[in-house]
Amino acid sequence: MHKEILEDIGEKELINRIRKFVPKNQISDDCALIKTKHENLLINTDSLVENVHFNDITICPEDIGWKAVVSNISDLLSSGSKKTIGVTISLVLPPRTEWIWVEELYKGINKALEEYGGVILGGDCSKGVEKIISITAFGVQGELELRRNACKPGDIILTTGIHGLSKLGFLIKNKINFDNEYSLNKRLIIKSIEHFCRPKVYPNFLNNLLKTRSNKNIKRIGCTDSSDGLFQALQDLAIASNCKAIINYEKMPIDKDWPKGDRWDEYYFFGGEDYELVFSLPKKWAKNLSKLDKNINEIGIFADGEPSIEFKDYKQNKLFNNTPYKHF
Amino acid sequence: MHKEILEDIGEKELINRIRKFVPKNQISDDCALIKTKHENLLINTDSLVENVHFNDITICPEDIGWKAVVSNISDLLSSGSKKTIGVTISLVLPPRTEWIWVEELYKGINKALEEYGGVILGGDCSKGVEKIISITAFGVQGELELRRNACKPGDIILTTGIHGLSKLGFLIKNKINFDNEYSLNKRLIIKSIEHFCRPKVYPNFLNNLLKTRSNKNIKRIGCTDSSDGLFQALQDLAIASNCKAIINYEKMPIDKDWPKGDRWDEYYFFGGEDYELVFSLPKKWAKNLSKLDKNINEIGIFADGEPSIEFKDYKQNKLFNNTPYKHF
Repeated sequence: MHKEILEDIGEKELINRIRKFVPKNQISDDCALIKTKHENLLINTDSLVENVHFNDITICPEDIGWKAVVSNISDLLSSGSKKTIGVTISLVLPPRTEWIWVEELYKGINKALEEYGGVILGGDCSKGVEKIISITAFGVQGELELRRNACKPGDIILTTGIHGLSKLGFLIKNKINFDNEYSLNKRLIIKSIEHFCRPKVYPNFLNNLLKTRSNKNIKRIGCTDSSDGLFQALQDLAIASNCKAIINYEKMPIDKDWPKGDRWDEYYFFGGEDYELVFSLPKKWAKNLSKLDKNINEIGIFADGEPSIEFKDYKQNKLFNNTPYKHF
Repeated sequence: MHKEILEDIGEKELINRIRKFVPKNQISDDCALIKTKHENLLINTDSLVENVHFNDITICPEDIGWKAVVSNISDLLSSGSKKTIGVTISLVLPPRTEWIWVEELYKGINKALEEYGGVILGGDCSKGVEKIISITAFGVQGELELRRNACKPGDIILTTGIHGLSKLGFLIKNKINFDNEYSLNKRLIIKSIEHFCRPKVYPNFLNNLLKTRSNKNIKRIGCTDSSDGLFQALQDLAIASNCKAIINYEKMPIDKDWPKGDRWDEYYFFGGEDYELVFSLPKKWAKNLSKLDKNINEIGIFADGEPSIEFKDYKQNKLFNNTPYKHF
């Protein structure tokens, strides 16, 4: 009998199959939701696995700790969390791990919590053959519910920050030599490494959203983060909201020294780990927000149609045929 | 320079050091607590690591799923959770894992949730070299706060059920041959395997506690579960509550066919994974409860003194010198 293994199934299909074991609507977003009588809690779990998500060559333990917290807070924020309550930390560590590694990891964890709020609520620790840091983060649902499935045809698609930098930082840390083809300037190199090692979440996002909302009746907007890459984020929104994303390639915010070419487009759209927000708003709201906050850019529009991504002014097929971020 | 590694530090010391990174009182119990305006939530995280906590020879994936949920619910219950809200599940799986393994795992997870309440709230999945199932469970804090640090001198020490059975089940599954020394009867073998593969949590514990409480002002009682063994549970209570446990060996509830001897005492006190409750109550309450519920036994008393465990009528030193359940 043919034995079906995960490698053959692929990550997307695996997640789809696992979803079938789960009550409807509980697992198709960045966060899970617990309703209590007074306020709703947002919960997010993310695991970082050695040699899959990190290794000792490209990133130091303090940065891993920071990043593990930030990736969780980014998911909370992209669901509309107004406050981070705290995190639980589940560690798996090989017995030959040095104590200093654990100490540095917690230094990074606590620095990120100092920066973004929240405390360590608990955790456990087991031995294993590779290091794994699994963090569950808790936040309080704010007034605006940000959900993957809340994009509407006619909504403007927006994004914070610049994509691709984290991927470039990762490649530089892996000593990929670009010098033969491109001369990367020093500023871009430093910025990319910073984005890879010490990603930030977007500070005033929720406040600015609330400030610029003209219609107080709108309580749900479409949103996710670009942790698995910009393309994946757009695809997740399109599928969950059942509409078509039409992207204006010319309007994508890029670093002023970002090289041109297919390879760089690939880093930009599929790189991942940028933790920028990708979201959609009604026209007027979008205009108000991008006027108030110069780091937010309109990059396209959602339209009626099969869930898909279309580039308005670009040979999109090349990108389409690319494989998004995958683990299996 | 000497590099200090976890293997040399040991599990207990590692946990103690990690606690120093954590705000006081947040990590010294079975569960973490989140206060919301109306009710408090209990949170517990437990990870099962392949070849540390399970392997494909001794336990099937459906039983692993069941057990992963039950071990978390046991921790919630031992903190006084009156209702399980749900769980998030974080999986690490090697790419060559068969799909059927995942399917069976979720079958066990969902069976346990059907039995004890709660739904799957979310999760994630990554690849890795060994299987890891990390579950975070959420419960609602009931009227009685059960805490490790709430035992008082004069309190009676009680326990549900019988200890050591899970360890025996594990040894039988590992094909340890007892026949040369002991002839284990078939009933005990079946019961032990059941305890190892399909542990249960104690159903009416909280209700019976509330029913037999004579003094409504007492809202906190000392409690933990025996997931790391009875001895470890007693030690955790004694240390957290800063008092001495005096144990009456003759009163320990044992299976009627449980063999006698040091080896069997060791399984009994250090076996672990029984998920029975170990707790303390004022005399009157203890009497009422053990009268109402014949599966609950008084096994000793807490007294003033340095945190320690003393056996009233047994050559305790042998057991004392033993090393409790360890991972590193």
